[in-house]
Amino acid sequence: MGDLKQWVDDIHRELSARSDKGRVADYIPQLAKVPAGKLGIAVATIDGETVTAGDADESFSIQSISKLFTLTLALRRLGGKLWTRVDREPSGNAFNSIVQLEHEQGRPRNPFVNAGAIAVTDVILDEHSPKDAPEEILRFVRYLANDDDIHIDDAVAKSEAAHGDRNMALAHFIKSYGVIHHEPTDVLGVYFQQCAIAMTCRQLAHSGLFLARQGVHPRGKYVVSADRARRINSLMLTCGHYDGAGDFAFRVGLPGKSGVGGGILAIVPSKAVIAVWSPGLDTNGNSLLGTAALEMLSKRTGWSVFS
Amino acid sequence: MGDLKQWVDDIHRELSARSDKGRVADYIPQLAKVPAGKLGIAVATIDGETVTAGDADESFSIQSISKLFTLTLALRRLGGKLWTRVDREPSGNAFNSIVQLEHEQGRPRNPFVNAGAIAVTDVILDEHSPKDAPEEILRFVRYLANDDDIHIDDAVAKSEAAHGDRNMALAHFIKSYGVIHHEPTDVLGVYFQQCAIAMTCRQLAHSGLFLARQGVHPRGKYVVSADRARRINSLMLTCGHYDGAGDFAFRVGLPGKSGVGGGILAIVPSKAVIAVWSPGLDTNGNSLLGTAALEMLSKRTGWSVFS
Amino acid sequence: MGDLKQWVDDIHRELSARSDKGRVADYIPQLAKVPAGKLGIAVATIDGETVTAGDADESFSIQSISKLFTLTLALRRLGGKLWTRVDREPSGNAFNSIVQLEHEQGRPRNPFVNAGAIAVTDVILDEHSPKDAPEEILRFVRYLANDDDIHIDDAVAKSEAAHGDRNMALAHFIKSYGVIHHEPTDVLGVYFQQCAIAMTCRQLAHSGLFLARQGVHPRGKYVVSADRARRINSLMLTCGHYDGAGDFAFRVGLPGKSGVGGGILAIVPSKAVIAVWSPGLDTNGNSLLGTAALEMLSKRTGWSVFS
Amino acid sequence: MGDLKQWVDDIHRELSARSDKGRVADYIPQLAKVPAGKLGIAVATIDGETVTAGDADESFSIQSISKLFTLTLALRRLGGKLWTRVDREPSGNAFNSIVQLEHEQGRPRNPFVNAGAIAVTDVILDEHSPKDAPEEILRFVRYLANDDDIHIDDAVAKSEAAHGDRNMALAHFIKSYGVIHHEPTDVLGVYFQQCAIAMTCRQLAHSGLFLARQGVHPRGKYVVSADRARRINSLMLTCGHYDGAGDFAFRVGLPGKSGVGGGILAIVPSKAVIAVWSPGLDTNGNSLLGTAALEMLSKRTGWSVFS
Repeated sequence: MGDLKQWVDDIHRELSARSDKGRVADYIPQLAKVPAGKLGIAVATIDGETVTAGDADESFSIQSISKLFTLTLALRRLGGKLWTRVDREPSGNAFNSIVQLEHEQGRPRNPFVNAGAIAVTDVILDEHSPKDAPEEILRFVRYLANDDDIHIDDAVAKSEAAHGDRNMALAHFIKSYGVIHHEPTDVLGVYFQQCAIAMTCRQLAHSGLFLARQGVHPRGKYVVSADRARRINSLMLTCGHYDGAGDFAFRVGLPGKSGVGGGILAIVPSKAVIAVWSPGLDTNGNSLLGTAALEMLSKRTGWSVFS
Repeated sequence: MGDLKQWVDDIHRELSARSDKGRVADYIPQLAKVPAGKLGIAVATIDGETVTAGDADESFSIQSISKLFTLTLALRRLGGKLWTRVDREPSGNAFNSIVQLEHEQGRPRNPFVNAGAIAVTDVILDEHSPKDAPEEILRFVRYLANDDDIHIDDAVAKSEAAHGDRNMALAHFIKSYGVIHHEPTDVLGVYFQQCAIAMTCRQLAHSGLFLARQGVHPRGKYVVSADRARRINSLMLTCGHYDGAGDFAFRVGLPGKSGVGGGILAIVPSKAVIAVWSPGLDTNGNSLLGTAALEMLSKRTGWSVFS
Repeated sequence: MGDLKQWVDDIHRELSARSDKGRVADYIPQLAKVPAGKLGIAVATIDGETVTAGDADESFSIQSISKLFTLTLALRRLGGKLWTRVDREPSGNAFNSIVQLEHEQGRPRNPFVNAGAIAVTDVILDEHSPKDAPEEILRFVRYLANDDDIHIDDAVAKSEAAHGDRNMALAHFIKSYGVIHHEPTDVLGVYFQQCAIAMTCRQLAHSGLFLARQGVHPRGKYVVSADRARRINSLMLTCGHYDGAGDFAFRVGLPGKSGVGGGILAIVPSKAVIAVWSPGLDTNGNSLLGTAALEMLSKRTGWSVFS
Repeated sequence: MGDLKQWVDDIHRELSARSDKGRVADYIPQLAKVPAGKLGIAVATIDGETVTAGDADESFSIQSISKLFTLTLALRRLGGKLWTRVDREPSGNAFNSIVQLEHEQGRPRNPFVNAGAIAVTDVILDEHSPKDAPEEILRFVRYLANDDDIHIDDAVAKSEAAHGDRNMALAHFIKSYGVIHHEPTDVLGVYFQQCAIAMTCRQLAHSGLFLARQGVHPRGKYVVSADRARRINSLMLTCGHYDGAGDFAFRVGLPGKSGVGGGILAIVPSKAVIAVWSPGLDTNGNSLLGTAALEMLSKRTGWSVFS
């Protein structure tokens, strides 16, 4: 652990000094105003230790990382039947592309592109009303992170809704193929709120521990089966970074899920969970310094699943 | 090792009894005539043990698995500069699709789709004549497998060339963008021969050991650096099974490269290499029983990189 | 005129005897229940004569033919500036495709594909409220046809709205690029009503006379300038039949606009207007017998613009 | 005729004064060195008169205009059966796009995109050897133009071949679908020579007269039937200007075929043929001043088929 703390601090120091911090997402004002200079790192090991550096205790908008939590919820509900609605292949396209949907009869390529995540959220509405569903998702995330101080940022959710035409297009499009069963307005109402959940790196790292622990929550209960945890990890690796998944695997070598708010959650199976946050993005919409931090840490620890 | 032998035998027995063996590739007569019932499994551990089952010592056409060997050769020659010519993202398209190439200015998505592999073979022609290059590739494969009894099946190579219009289209297309430097006829002459290399499961398993041993050949020399071995493994996982890469990662959880001849080479980092062969294919062009064998073996051994 | 009446009767008789009448649109129940055997033909000459045959005085749903009327209205309002929002090229894709929109930054290919027609209807909302706009369009159509007995079929409009997810997807998609300025729900509210206008062949033929008369209404006033009438005709020829435009030009050789209700309006510049109706469609969604009737009539009259 | 001569001279004078002359094609050196300032106009009426202006008697490379001649030849040989190999719909894509080919199983959209023209040239090789075919095409063009002083520019043909990878890709691609029957090298050998035919505006205008005269050669024999002439005209209108066909119909309103050498041949059915030449191109690859000249002339003469 001593080494790990040292490495994390070194990486934080080295990256903080970089001048190119990427470009903060500006499609909604709430994200645009976050300072590009923020950088947080948190590592939670399966032994129960947590080391952090920088802004690891500052909340940020988890955005697409929330897709991982709703996917887990939907799999708990539907099991393997979920895959009749959503495929599990990398898309080779931008996260919000509609082209592939038309060529593939409305079936989203995977649960992490927007269309796929919308289809996943639709499953949650089978059991919960549009009003209750965001609370249910929030309850689940708090349980996973073992921390009740996690909230939805309403201003972000509203702003997403106000700029939501592209996602509305995706939702109506897949509904025209029968892929979702509820009203697009309702599904996106939930979707925009799940994306607006705000968490710290520390909370995020804890929330992913079940994926590093063969599906078992740190407090002992199965969140999902060991098989399912393994498969969720595989989906994160092949599809977790949109059209930059190959590059992330190449450089970092860990299952991960990024969000446009600048966060990335990475799983080290049987070892640890890493959460990083830096709001400047690369051209694929993934955190520039966050990815760099993971690449450096993966190299120093030898944690890549490929070595 | 006792367990491993037992598992491999059990899997071979169980799968041999299956009636659905997939569909043997029939685009060239030489592949079409291989009996669908063949099934070979070989596992080579990094400790130097090898266990086999079924037709593990029968030669078959390695086809696209050869792309792994030429990629390794090209990386030894060009290093990271190779990535200016070829990207490393999953394609989300069939192995021989030309659509994405047009949208991306002729730059192949990764070294394992046909266009990308053709670009990789082009690099080998920088140093070797069209006549010598196939010999050079063969020498390299024999060295990796530590076995000189590996040959090119001329009938297969000729037949590929006779049905090579689609690949010729790809080669001319990327040449029009300056991605390859040599004549398409020359590049494909080499490409068709590398695909026609015939190997056994045992030979194939041995040839991949450097990827499980951080780049080090069983006889001790570095084939590539540890970093490079790790990255090649990541490419196999994200791009090694064409448009079925996500599914293979989901089910098997190992870096792998398949060929239309029915072979699959899978790497278990720091542990072993598995080679399977069964000529019947699934709809994505990957071995049906071969994939099933790997899925079963990965589950029994717990070798998935995601758990 | 004696010949023309004879020809129209002959064509009606010959086509009525055909067994293959195409397939009636069934995406909404209101269209599905129209008998496939209906066939109406009306020809209105610029001299003021009208000849008809068959069900020429029975009302049917004009559907996409309404796009011609809203285009004329929008051009009267915006003039050539309309073309900054919508292109005027054939699409090479289905009428409701979204693929090309993504490749072309949300700008619809032409005013006759659904996305383009939605953008055109959006222009009408610049001056009229969502509630008044359908009335305004109806007023204009009545004026053109010189007949006040033209109405909107509310059941059809409601049914379209109930099955409108694909069009909602298109509207939200182009709104995300700023191509439309009003709310998708409002724009589509108007759009579904304009498509639900019911007219007879006779009314339809009269409504198109200004396009055969260099922009001049039969009662003497300019509807649009001669230049604009000529250009609208050119758009009908290159884009009026979705992905069957080339075939329609090849066989019929006249500017025309078809609707999924089975109607087709064709312009013979400086000579006449032809309206046909038969609800059975071909694979491109154009009236099977209607197109055949136009082909036969164009051949007998020598009215093709290409001869 | 007096008026026509005056109009043509006026248009020539006005356009010669323009500073923006478009961009000369530079993908082969032979085309790049033609001065952008050239502008020729020739009008041949069906009464046998010819008026010209500017560089109307200077030879230029007809390039894609040759596709009109080979299409006519292929239709004379195969008749309507040609349409089983090539469709007749506008492409909605660039002239050399390969995307649509993949989506449509290798069947070119129309005979004027490169892939379609290659398929048409393949038909000519059914009866003529690769060596004789160019001579046969040349003989046909001389016959149509009633002028033996028409030649193939060998330097242009060779240069095309040296830069022919994109066309080679198209040829191999459609061959992989069985659309062409001869060797790509042979077919393109002919294709590059037909494109290298050099003609003057005067010769080109005469060569198109059969299309304005219901298929009849000025000397009295049928080149094609009246029906076929009409249909060829329709194809020129919907597909003759690549992805600028809609715009050309909108502005000029005449069937036309352009070439990257800056020539355009336009048909005025039952009236005349217009040939223009100016080597500077617009963004769609069509002659900038040539199109402007046709637009002005069409307006002054009222010759648009849409008015």
